[in-house]
Amino acid sequence: MTAPAEPYLLTPGPLTTAASTKEAMLRDWGSWDGDFRAMTARLRRSLLDIAGDTDDVDGEYDCVPLQGSGSYCVEAMLGSFVPRDGHALVLANGAYGKRIATTLRYLGRRHTVHDTGDYLPPRAADVERILAANAEITHVVVVHCETSSGILNPIEEIAAVTARASRRLLIDSMSAFGAVALDVRTLPCDAFVSSANKCIEGVPGFGFVIAKKDVLRDAKGNSHSLALDIHDQWEVMNRTGQWRFTPPTHAVAAFIEALRLYALEGGQPGRLARYTRNRDVLVAGMGSLGFEPLLTGQWRSPIIVTFFSPADPAFNFERFYELMKAQGFIIYPGKLTTVESFRIGCIGALDETIMRQVIEACRNALGTLGVTSGAPATAALGKREALVA
Amino acid sequence: MTAPAEPYLLTPGPLTTAASTKEAMLRDWGSWDGDFRAMTARLRRSLLDIAGDTDDVDGEYDCVPLQGSGSYCVEAMLGSFVPRDGHALVLANGAYGKRIATTLRYLGRRHTVHDTGDYLPPRAADVERILAANAEITHVVVVHCETSSGILNPIEEIAAVTARASRRLLIDSMSAFGAVALDVRTLPCDAFVSSANKCIEGVPGFGFVIAKKDVLRDAKGNSHSLALDIHDQWEVMNRTGQWRFTPPTHAVAAFIEALRLYALEGGQPGRLARYTRNRDVLVAGMGSLGFEPLLTGQWRSPIIVTFFSPADPAFNFERFYELMKAQGFIIYPGKLTTVESFRIGCIGALDETIMRQVIEACRNALGTLGVTSGAPATAALGKREALVA
Repeated sequence: MTAPAEPYLLTPGPLTTAASTKEAMLRDWGSWDGDFRAMTARLRRSLLDIAGDTDDVDGEYDCVPLQGSGSYCVEAMLGSFVPRDGHALVLANGAYGKRIATTLRYLGRRHTVHDTGDYLPPRAADVERILAANAEITHVVVVHCETSSGILNPIEEIAAVTARASRRLLIDSMSAFGAVALDVRTLPCDAFVSSANKCIEGVPGFGFVIAKKDVLRDAKGNSHSLALDIHDQWEVMNRTGQWRFTPPTHAVAAFIEALRLYALEGGQPGRLARYTRNRDVLVAGMGSLGFEPLLTGQWRSPIIVTFFSPADPAFNFERFYELMKAQGFIIYPGKLTTVESFRIGCIGALDETIMRQVIEACRNALGTLGVTSGAPATAALGKREALVA
Repeated sequence: MTAPAEPYLLTPGPLTTAASTKEAMLRDWGSWDGDFRAMTARLRRSLLDIAGDTDDVDGEYDCVPLQGSGSYCVEAMLGSFVPRDGHALVLANGAYGKRIATTLRYLGRRHTVHDTGDYLPPRAADVERILAANAEITHVVVVHCETSSGILNPIEEIAAVTARASRRLLIDSMSAFGAVALDVRTLPCDAFVSSANKCIEGVPGFGFVIAKKDVLRDAKGNSHSLALDIHDQWEVMNRTGQWRFTPPTHAVAAFIEALRLYALEGGQPGRLARYTRNRDVLVAGMGSLGFEPLLTGQWRSPIIVTFFSPADPAFNFERFYELMKAQGFIIYPGKLTTVESFRIGCIGALDETIMRQVIEACRNALGTLGVTSGAPATAALGKREALVA
């Protein structure tokens, strides 16, 4: 197999985008101009529709796009919506949950971390217990799909228990929104964030916050930062149709095309079906080479899959990475703290045919390395079983 | 004249970029991959060279690119380099100077504003007097080219007087760097910022801070924000070659091509020559239609020119804008507080031939509106003369 000119990105964003999405960047837009303001309005409207807030006039939520990476949006959401005398319960099971705690530390917002480690989701009973014991907690913050491991956290049960305890819920749905269902009509939350270059398959450059209008209104004066003040961005955007500061115009144009392709594919159900098929073909194929996924089926997201590194001492991730890249596939290193692993993404403009090529490329790479099986050490597996039991 | 499919942007960024710059966005890059890390390294090295810090090993400065708009970089510079017990003197003469003061207010950093209004530059004698009278001032913050009016502020004399008073200088060189000389070998400053989509002619999506290495080192723990922590971005980038959070990969690829075109044009002197010629053709041509620029020649930047709106009651900016757009030119509204005005930019992938077409388009638009002359009211001119005298 010869490598294509451009490798496929089997990573959780930036990801491989459609040719027409990139071609939408072949012109320049004036950010003050009416044509661009119309694009911004369309982007906001489309994202609210995907989130289930479909009433243009009386909708309960609004969408505020924000320049920068997804983590900027997470920080903007925390700084704008957790008041200075608030107290957040952070449900962490990976790097992104930990980053939320770090951000709150920067912001000087009180917070409590409930860390379930690399393998396990936060569960309703535990959250209920923590909230009952800590009356001062005002907000619960949860990561939808924690891409460190690829775990899909049970946000429905977390939302239910948070609402029952009359606390407010903020969701980092960065890598899940658009593929995994997140409908504000059935999932009570104050706000969630995602980014252009995840499941909508745009290019990186901005993210967006979807929040209740009354939460946006009440956020005035909360933010620690002018650039990341979601209330101010919202207020100016509603008044002028413009972003407060220079927007990434080309990334916005690409996103409009990405939204068109998204609708053509059947929206969230269509995208979920393709990503799920990508994941299933990947896991089955890797299994045929001996590889074991970190997570049991119940928690395994259709976004990215973590595999244990093979026990075979001939395996070396850096060499494996380069051998995969030479065949046209960029994979992703692991981010676990206690075992060696690597990750392969299922999202972006790729399908099961590509996933089968990924398996073949893996087989070739193992052959070159002299690795006879992808099977992990029993110790690694044992650790997982003990934790999941 | 029929309008081209894509209008020219006569705006101070986003601006019209070269076709090859946009074409560089026709592929996706993995941000973790070595190829992209090499692009980041090249971008940082090239910007330091343009700033005059040409020694790869022993250079005194380093370059830290940051996701988001230029204003994010200004906030990041202020939050990272003005310590929490610092006190900044803000030299304001337009919207961007005012935004610096607003940002410092968000950050809770003490500051004093020296506001010289819409028309006038800050001068060394005044700054010297203010610094002498206020021993607690630690930093001076100045805008290089204030695009509200198009004034080119005399940063050389401000830098000299700031250094003499042993205070530290931070420069917002957003719309000037790359075209107007800013050489750290001769201009003492702690740091300055600029953005991808200004005089280097890239697309929007990130900006960059160029700062002394010891200032970057000392900034640890200062920042109010994780996303905007320049010390952290610098430390991680130097250690891993990567951006901490997802970078705007396509905008970075476009910038690499923009840097190639920049070098081809002869770097800063070449670009300054073209922009200056654009401005001179523009001012002369508009003058032939009766239009008067706001600023006298001494302070008029080659970046963007503010013209007084015509006194003729038949003139209406919204209609003028649409008539210009229909002929293929996006111009820019005014941002002055006391007189009616509009702005025309001189930067981006355009030359004097285009500028002559702009003049013809203006002539046509005035004809359609029934405006006989672009001449402003004597009162507006009188106000300028009184202030400049």
